[in-house]
Amino acid sequence: MKFHYPNGKKFVQPAVKSSKKDKANNQVVYSNRGMTLEEDLNETNEYYLHKGMAVIYKKPTPVQIVKVDYPRRSAAVIKEAYFKQASTTDYNGVYKGAYIDFEAKETQNATSFPLKNFHEHQISHMKQVVNHGGISFVILRFSSTDEIFYLKSEHLSFFWERMKNGGRKSISKAEIEEFGFSIPIGLHPRIDYLSIVDNHYNFDY
Amino acid sequence: MKFHYPNGKKFVQPAVKSSKKDKANNQVVYSNRGMTLEEDLNETNEYYLHKGMAVIYKKPTPVQIVKVDYPRRSAAVIKEAYFKQASTTDYNGVYKGAYIDFEAKETQNATSFPLKNFHEHQISHMKQVVNHGGISFVILRFSSTDEIFYLKSEHLSFFWERMKNGGRKSISKAEIEEFGFSIPIGLHPRIDYLSIVDNHYNFDY
Repeated sequence: MKFHYPNGKKFVQPAVKSSKKDKANNQVVYSNRGMTLEEDLNETNEYYLHKGMAVIYKKPTPVQIVKVDYPRRSAAVIKEAYFKQASTTDYNGVYKGAYIDFEAKETQNATSFPLKNFHEHQISHMKQVVNHGGISFVILRFSSTDEIFYLKSEHLSFFWERMKNGGRKSISKAEIEEFGFSIPIGLHPRIDYLSIVDNHYNFDY
Repeated sequence: MKFHYPNGKKFVQPAVKSSKKDKANNQVVYSNRGMTLEEDLNETNEYYLHKGMAVIYKKPTPVQIVKVDYPRRSAAVIKEAYFKQASTTDYNGVYKGAYIDFEAKETQNATSFPLKNFHEHQISHMKQVVNHGGISFVILRFSSTDEIFYLKSEHLSFFWERMKNGGRKSISKAEIEEFGFSIPIGLHPRIDYLSIVDNHYNFDY
């Protein structure tokens, strides 16, 4: 997509870089726009849907409903409910005939990604998805530099097991750079994770 | 699975039949057990998961959260929330590498299935799933006879369009019997819908 800003400058898709560099170079800055990772992914999934590329949604937040009022002539009101821990991942759907399943998390940590962002249920869910031929991964955002990585769930499982065997409770950023893939950040779509899927899976579809 | 009841009679998997007939024949009756369709499907999905056959879950009920209290030393309490209309279907997951997506509804009507059980969003979602190579269907239960049918979303779309073009607002039971497939009802799994998927799709997986 090519378009011009009102200032007459041609729009150029910026490479993935840290916000510091962006500021230094006075380029278009997508970082720190006050958007959460969830909002960016919802926008990305809407883009994919409207372009006819994929059908991927975030699942609703799981809630345990305890008390509901049914006032006359108006909608039911939930008066007491609690957040439940999800037993699966947040996002799933279909892309080129394949089942896509992922979780997205962010950290303010600059040098490593804490594994406490995940829980055992999710790790075993992701393993099951892979066993059944699905494509499973996590999207990890380092919010201090606005860098976003794609890590296959097989690698996440490896680091999870290392922790359970007494190893470190996080994945170092160097490890994420080695085993994961940097996701291009843009305007539309904001977080183009399917470009990574395309490069790493064969579709006969 | 073969086992004997305490009365020494051999267990025989009953064919799908109406509860009236079951009662008349004095056979094992699974109908009217006080289980909802949702409970039966959750049990079925757990069975599939534990047998390593498929990874399919019901999505959480979508809720718009308005007010949350954070009491000291205890869990956050949602004090005001509203039910939202789902934009997709209730169930999805992966089976033999394929994306599975379905909605389940029941009616007390004996001779037809009212289309008001669905809404436009869901119909268009199901179309998109099919366009992307997913397997999409609805599970329809006639609660008065405890008969359960599998209807491909392509057929549901056809009847939906007929309604929008001024035709009847329901699918007659005869049509469901003609275009759909009767789902075997059992003990484990209760609603073996994947047996229908197996018979109607080719998996190279």
